[in-house]
Amino acid sequence: MAAAKKLGKQTVRFQTPPSIISTASIVGKKEGEGPLKNYFDKILDDAHWGEKTWEKAESKMLREAVITAVTKANLPLSKMDYIFAGDLLNQCISSNFGIRELNIPFFGLYGACSTMALSLSIAAMTIDGGFADYAVAATSSHFCSAERQFRFPLEYGGQRPQTSQWTVTGAGAVVLSNQGNGPYITHVTTGKIVDLGIKDANNMGAAMAPAAADTIYTHFEDTGFKPDDYDLIITGDLAGVGKEIVQELLGSKACDISNNFNDCGLVIFDNKSQDTHAGGSGCGCSAVVLAGYLYKEMLKGNLNKILFVATGALMSPTSSLQGESIPGIAHAVTIQNTLG
Amino acid sequence: MAAAKKLGKQTVRFQTPPSIISTASIVGKKEGEGPLKNYFDKILDDAHWGEKTWEKAESKMLREAVITAVTKANLPLSKMDYIFAGDLLNQCISSNFGIRELNIPFFGLYGACSTMALSLSIAAMTIDGGFADYAVAATSSHFCSAERQFRFPLEYGGQRPQTSQWTVTGAGAVVLSNQGNGPYITHVTTGKIVDLGIKDANNMGAAMAPAAADTIYTHFEDTGFKPDDYDLIITGDLAGVGKEIVQELLGSKACDISNNFNDCGLVIFDNKSQDTHAGGSGCGCSAVVLAGYLYKEMLKGNLNKILFVATGALMSPTSSLQGESIPGIAHAVTIQNTLG
Repeated sequence: MAAAKKLGKQTVRFQTPPSIISTASIVGKKEGEGPLKNYFDKILDDAHWGEKTWEKAESKMLREAVITAVTKANLPLSKMDYIFAGDLLNQCISSNFGIRELNIPFFGLYGACSTMALSLSIAAMTIDGGFADYAVAATSSHFCSAERQFRFPLEYGGQRPQTSQWTVTGAGAVVLSNQGNGPYITHVTTGKIVDLGIKDANNMGAAMAPAAADTIYTHFEDTGFKPDDYDLIITGDLAGVGKEIVQELLGSKACDISNNFNDCGLVIFDNKSQDTHAGGSGCGCSAVVLAGYLYKEMLKGNLNKILFVATGALMSPTSSLQGESIPGIAHAVTIQNTLG
Repeated sequence: MAAAKKLGKQTVRFQTPPSIISTASIVGKKEGEGPLKNYFDKILDDAHWGEKTWEKAESKMLREAVITAVTKANLPLSKMDYIFAGDLLNQCISSNFGIRELNIPFFGLYGACSTMALSLSIAAMTIDGGFADYAVAATSSHFCSAERQFRFPLEYGGQRPQTSQWTVTGAGAVVLSNQGNGPYITHVTTGKIVDLGIKDANNMGAAMAPAAADTIYTHFEDTGFKPDDYDLIITGDLAGVGKEIVQELLGSKACDISNNFNDCGLVIFDNKSQDTHAGGSGCGCSAVVLAGYLYKEMLKGNLNKILFVATGALMSPTSSLQGESIPGIAHAVTIQNTLG
């Protein structure tokens, strides 16, 4: 017996597509000054949010995003069958400590900045598979904790090249259910690791772009969808450099997505006035753009069918010091307002 | 409609239980000198296995374990619908780099030393849910890379307290399928984070024990099984200190598992002659004990029904430096030779 819901090589189609029943997003000050400021549930005044460390602030953001999303769904936390979460910090401490008190069965994930699509993918599978009534998908990132861990101490004040991206301070949470009136998650295309040899940790967009192109191309092959079937195809955090590369790579395979293609790292900041170089990045980037902007535009009917493609760079400072290139991954999730 | 396969609070029962169709285990020299030496597929001569760094050696172990397991199933890698993997290293680089060339859709996980049960749980759900025909669950750890990252440089030669454990150098991979003649994964009990305030990173067994007790107790409540229904209840890497605490905690709730309870961290080394203090630990500990010893004893019929409970300590060096306690988690998987 072949798996009933497989579609092509890397895609599944849900028989009873899970519905997004609520979302929540919490962002930092800079993100709250950007073009999407009216879409977020909470904008912090500073990087610490009353905590002693940036890491604890990030944990608090994740926890409060989950609690806010579940509360908006008019449900108690105890109704959540599973939470799927991960983040960028070593050993995923912002997730682990963030959800410690929530008392929800927990599947920990690591997909770097692909985590929002990774968590949505598996959460949707547990619901359509009959294992859960409610599942939460969540992730976070924090500019200060990420810079300290991956690059330099902030106090060092190093210059950043123009290809570098600005890690979003933000946490997003999405509640899925086998009940609900949409938007629905209908398809998931799970990515493979793609590594074309980029070694520059200040050019993550270029490192992740081949994986994004691979997953998007496979998605269309597996589903038979065409780019214009979507109102929007939006990658996670390729930003300016990576987005161009994806369009080129797909163009060379006669797949033109330029009509309705954008990137979360390009919409979250106003690059002219906010000086983020290539654009935004971090797990929180695609998470808050989805939980804030995209979800609300879908509810308004301004977007009816989107392909959400979060992208991750799977290196560590240690692997880079040991001369390794940067493996990329991208997972794609189809979200649509109506079924059939 | 309530989720069809939910059982109690945290457990699912599979309708078409996935079968383990093959496993592979690769271990280091010290593990290869222990009491389970005849159960492993490969024993390495040194900590580097021809690689320049311990991290690259760990990646290679993970990759070769996956390839060996799939090859033993007489299948090409291209038949694998998904691989679920994670490890202890920052940003899970041993998994990311290990499976980079395998070209299999990849879900990255982080569950610290609970990863073998975490990966098996989700892999089994994707198969029973109809999303996959074949899925691989894998993880690894390496004494040298773990000591460097979590504790001290090996060259420092620091003394270790008697409560400390010895990180296993090893990688295990398990191939699941909707075909096959068992052993089958029939139930999964997903853990919540439990943190009773232990702060001593040299006493991980004590930190994880409350989570293990919580998951085991919930498993019996949810399923109606009794301890004596199992031939063996085996935790991941609580070792000597943690195992005693689990028995005490469960005993205080009138749940006596002492007849058939053991821990992977206690069976992998001969503690008298190999001087590992409290016992073995690391993602690789429960992975190679399952993929080597337990699976083969099940095939022989010496074990017919086991509860495999891998346990994870979800802290990082940063969280410990910031004064945090150690959150624990444990996931339980029922594996049995016959159905019904």
